[in-house]
Amino acid sequence: MYKGGFTGKILRLDLTNQKATEEEVSYDLAKEYMGGVGFAFKYLYDEFKPGTDALDENNKLIFAVGPLNATGAPCANRMAVAAKSPLTNSIAAAFSGGHFPDELKNAGYDMIIVEGRAAKPAYVSIADGQVRFRNASKLMGMQTTDTQLFIKDELKDHNFRVACIGPAGEKLSPIACIINERRAAGRKGMGAVMGSKNLKAIAVRGTGKVNIADPDMFKEKRKVMLNAMKNSPVLYPEFSKAGTPMVVDVTTGLGILSIKNWAETGQRDMVPKLGGAEQDKYIIDRAFCANCSVGCSQVKMAKEGPYAGFLSEGPEFETVYALGSNCGIDYIPAIIAGDRLCDEYGIDTVSAGVAIGFAMELYEKGIITDKDTDGLELKFGNDKAMIEMLHRITYQVGLGAILAKGTKLAAKHFGQGTEEFAINIKGLELPAYDVRGAKAHGLNYATAYNGGDHCRGYAFQEIFDIPVPEKVDRFATKGKGILTKWNQDVRLVTCDCATLCGFVLDMAVPDIACQNTADLFTAATGISVTAEEVEQIGERVNNIARLFNIREGFTRKDDRFPPRLMKEEIKGGASKGQKISQTDLDEMLDEYYDARGWDKTGTPTVAKLKELGITKVD
Amino acid sequence: MYKGGFTGKILRLDLTNQKATEEEVSYDLAKEYMGGVGFAFKYLYDEFKPGTDALDENNKLIFAVGPLNATGAPCANRMAVAAKSPLTNSIAAAFSGGHFPDELKNAGYDMIIVEGRAAKPAYVSIADGQVRFRNASKLMGMQTTDTQLFIKDELKDHNFRVACIGPAGEKLSPIACIINERRAAGRKGMGAVMGSKNLKAIAVRGTGKVNIADPDMFKEKRKVMLNAMKNSPVLYPEFSKAGTPMVVDVTTGLGILSIKNWAETGQRDMVPKLGGAEQDKYIIDRAFCANCSVGCSQVKMAKEGPYAGFLSEGPEFETVYALGSNCGIDYIPAIIAGDRLCDEYGIDTVSAGVAIGFAMELYEKGIITDKDTDGLELKFGNDKAMIEMLHRITYQVGLGAILAKGTKLAAKHFGQGTEEFAINIKGLELPAYDVRGAKAHGLNYATAYNGGDHCRGYAFQEIFDIPVPEKVDRFATKGKGILTKWNQDVRLVTCDCATLCGFVLDMAVPDIACQNTADLFTAATGISVTAEEVEQIGERVNNIARLFNIREGFTRKDDRFPPRLMKEEIKGGASKGQKISQTDLDEMLDEYYDARGWDKTGTPTVAKLKELGITKVD
Repeated sequence: MYKGGFTGKILRLDLTNQKATEEEVSYDLAKEYMGGVGFAFKYLYDEFKPGTDALDENNKLIFAVGPLNATGAPCANRMAVAAKSPLTNSIAAAFSGGHFPDELKNAGYDMIIVEGRAAKPAYVSIADGQVRFRNASKLMGMQTTDTQLFIKDELKDHNFRVACIGPAGEKLSPIACIINERRAAGRKGMGAVMGSKNLKAIAVRGTGKVNIADPDMFKEKRKVMLNAMKNSPVLYPEFSKAGTPMVVDVTTGLGILSIKNWAETGQRDMVPKLGGAEQDKYIIDRAFCANCSVGCSQVKMAKEGPYAGFLSEGPEFETVYALGSNCGIDYIPAIIAGDRLCDEYGIDTVSAGVAIGFAMELYEKGIITDKDTDGLELKFGNDKAMIEMLHRITYQVGLGAILAKGTKLAAKHFGQGTEEFAINIKGLELPAYDVRGAKAHGLNYATAYNGGDHCRGYAFQEIFDIPVPEKVDRFATKGKGILTKWNQDVRLVTCDCATLCGFVLDMAVPDIACQNTADLFTAATGISVTAEEVEQIGERVNNIARLFNIREGFTRKDDRFPPRLMKEEIKGGASKGQKISQTDLDEMLDEYYDARGWDKTGTPTVAKLKELGITKVD
Repeated sequence: MYKGGFTGKILRLDLTNQKATEEEVSYDLAKEYMGGVGFAFKYLYDEFKPGTDALDENNKLIFAVGPLNATGAPCANRMAVAAKSPLTNSIAAAFSGGHFPDELKNAGYDMIIVEGRAAKPAYVSIADGQVRFRNASKLMGMQTTDTQLFIKDELKDHNFRVACIGPAGEKLSPIACIINERRAAGRKGMGAVMGSKNLKAIAVRGTGKVNIADPDMFKEKRKVMLNAMKNSPVLYPEFSKAGTPMVVDVTTGLGILSIKNWAETGQRDMVPKLGGAEQDKYIIDRAFCANCSVGCSQVKMAKEGPYAGFLSEGPEFETVYALGSNCGIDYIPAIIAGDRLCDEYGIDTVSAGVAIGFAMELYEKGIITDKDTDGLELKFGNDKAMIEMLHRITYQVGLGAILAKGTKLAAKHFGQGTEEFAINIKGLELPAYDVRGAKAHGLNYATAYNGGDHCRGYAFQEIFDIPVPEKVDRFATKGKGILTKWNQDVRLVTCDCATLCGFVLDMAVPDIACQNTADLFTAATGISVTAEEVEQIGERVNNIARLFNIREGFTRKDDRFPPRLMKEEIKGGASKGQKISQTDLDEMLDEYYDARGWDKTGTPTVAKLKELGITKVD
């Protein structure tokens, strides 16, 4: 049907009956949904029984790579892990890079659909198309590095790549993640969905090769992208050397790095100790995902002090925020240790850090006391308490068992107006960028299909002053609806379907992202698409996601901000005085819905769905 | 020259000049020294410049496998790691199993001699005879699991096997070990020697196969051994299921499990919590070294409580003693955590535990105070303090920096008669078996070439009541000289030269060990030897070791017991009232030297050396 790009095969794993079946990737699916999250959401939308609980065995957990994985396309090495989220109850996808995704592709699969629930703890091995269901009893409770190693031992080949959950996922914490190598499909509780299926891990070994339909064209288009990357003033010169923590300085400059549970954004005292120059002192290595020439991930290690010996691939910017500034902690070794522990435990650093910051504020305000913390002095800045809380969250001990459910449910538990301090949207704890000083970030958080998630439509225009598609005023609300639609659609298709790395998109090819993706996709697969069609795929999948959520009961009122952000203004720094109101939000939502061809309730119109070729509407 | 068994090649790594050279294994070397520690000590004795400091670049660090590694001979999977020890200043060897040794053999080498010192941190990769010196700068400070993973990443093949040091070895602690996979060449500071050479790791990948000279004979002799193993009433029925921790119960029954820095041997209150039934609760898996059908190593994990998530391959019996009973700690999860941390830090669990027990006693006696411990309440039974001290020892912080040198030097530092509480012989901290209730253990500790080391001549007769070569009274001193010579020689040749597993020797083939080794060696190599010749190899190497030590200034007075053991008697339990005096020791030494053909000063006679064919005497 087509000569390359895809393996053409979808693997369906029925854990209940320990049955593996293969299905074909159809031409229409490939042309209309491209791959990655496009495939995953199309299947979820079609097959998910509305109203099913996220941790019910009838939820589906989907791992999907894209048409450019393992082709040699620069930085196209990621995968989507999708399901209904137990944290947001919406459709959701987390993404991870590293080497597992390409290994899966080389093993012969574009997508794995995991269904049912294993009677006993299980893991699945996939070696070049040979699928085995295996007993994971002995792996239960194991942290993620050990899990990977024990599986490789058992399979007698350490070149398997393993995606697995830690104890947090086994214990069904909705902030549990999935770890492959030292990378995380971090947010929205995909680890809990995996845990609910009694699936500890998937191990993959692939020695195959992906065909390229038009190798000459592919080579040429690949060069276009590599050149754009080379010409970026940021990508290699800065980002390669410092990675995402460089954004600590950028957001500090803009006054939008959130501090102490978002109460002290703009306060600058602590930030110098978290900034780039300080971060650099701990770098010992750079890590590269497959087919990456950038190597943004800075491996850091504490060599002395109480955290000596802790090492992590990261901590990335969002972790520096969540476990650092948001908890009032500016001791980098503690953040490195926390990052590593989150990876070992299999919990999302952002949700965990925001949950701890939330608890710290309640403790400082006296809403919770030593009785709740079992004597732990849970004050902002207490790094030992942060580390201890990560352990308690993972093993669901005392207060940890409450925070392990995320801030939304924790606030319900504590009552007394604590929702005010619960910094989440649709249940998903917010990333670092304070929306009051970056309005498109705010609108994206509010409307992203799986809650407050910067990666679903990152407004790089507001952060790096890149005038694509045009120059923006980060404080303005006007124009942010149109911008956010564009950001979300382009991001979804290029990063989450084609699985190109988002950093490359932001820093090197924002202006040519869709063209570039169209060209590489056409060359790799032999399925000809235009840039416009590519962008439309992004729009199509965002509409599918919206339809899924509407079916699950989501309405306009869920496209919201946390109450605190609409009550308080930013108190200091370069965004001092900035605020955001319900009126601001409503204006932005109206513009956004309009740009999307959705009605005032946020529901896609029949005309829009027809335009996108979406015929199934429940 | 010979058709099998050996690869025939010795690899000499000159770190100073980054030069690798190959040498041949000679027929005479093979016939007279068999392999493993035999090869290593022969080379050390011949090439080591007398008086050289153990951490001087002119010390040599030797990794040596044996003629049966990777041949399929049951449980012949170990290697010797030898050098002059920085802890004992004697010749020394530590041993490790797992998979690195066989991988080295399959890569084409019987032995690696590491010389000199790298100008910058280095590691060496060996892939089927292709040797590369590599930059290890980024690995410095890294714990051992991470080190192994980062090297495999860099070499782009996770099937390399890696032997490495942790931070303790880099910091030249004389109780630092070398870790391969989850196994340790643990004792006598081989990790510090590696660190002194600026050598972080050796990575090996071997896809070759070892030739067997006479496959039919080998198959037959292999079956003899497998049958003996099968017929053992202990090996599979008990040892496979419980591993070395079963000895907790055995030694408790005999009243010789040392407790609280050897002050309370025989006290039984705590032991039930450390015994087999309690240990079993934490078992999650069994680990097998290469070509092993026993799988004695029980992988244990703490699933709840403050140490939840810690997992270790072990803790073995000696670790249960050192970090447990010897520190008055009976909380198994803490021992599991301590075991894992020792492996990650690269320190010997036994020396570390005994050093901490020593410090706990000083603290309880008020000889050291909170000032020395920086406020840590270093009492017997405080598991958190034990864990914290492991970190301080590794990173040489405060009191940790003193204990990191071992108990002999620590006692010198503290003075005030603290030598009384320093439980070591020749500087090597003692294993679990209280010598007052097992006199052959005592004599072996006193005379073993590298200090108090149960593995150099383990008197299984006293522990398991096995009447080979004859029944013994464990309290008696008479006869222990002859017995110890036999134990040391047989153990050295079968376990440390042929690299057969000691547990198999003790539990399955003590009566046929030399015959069996002779047969397998003859079949594998084509070099015909008798059981008597095999035993004589053991004797030869023990004499070489003695000559080395005499050259370094050791005399009869170094064959000693720690003062406490000659002052106090065992206060309770099945060995109550047992003691050991200088007179007892002298009687045993006289008998032992006589059995060895050594004079009263413990020096090999000319006649003995002539009999053994040792011509070089400095």
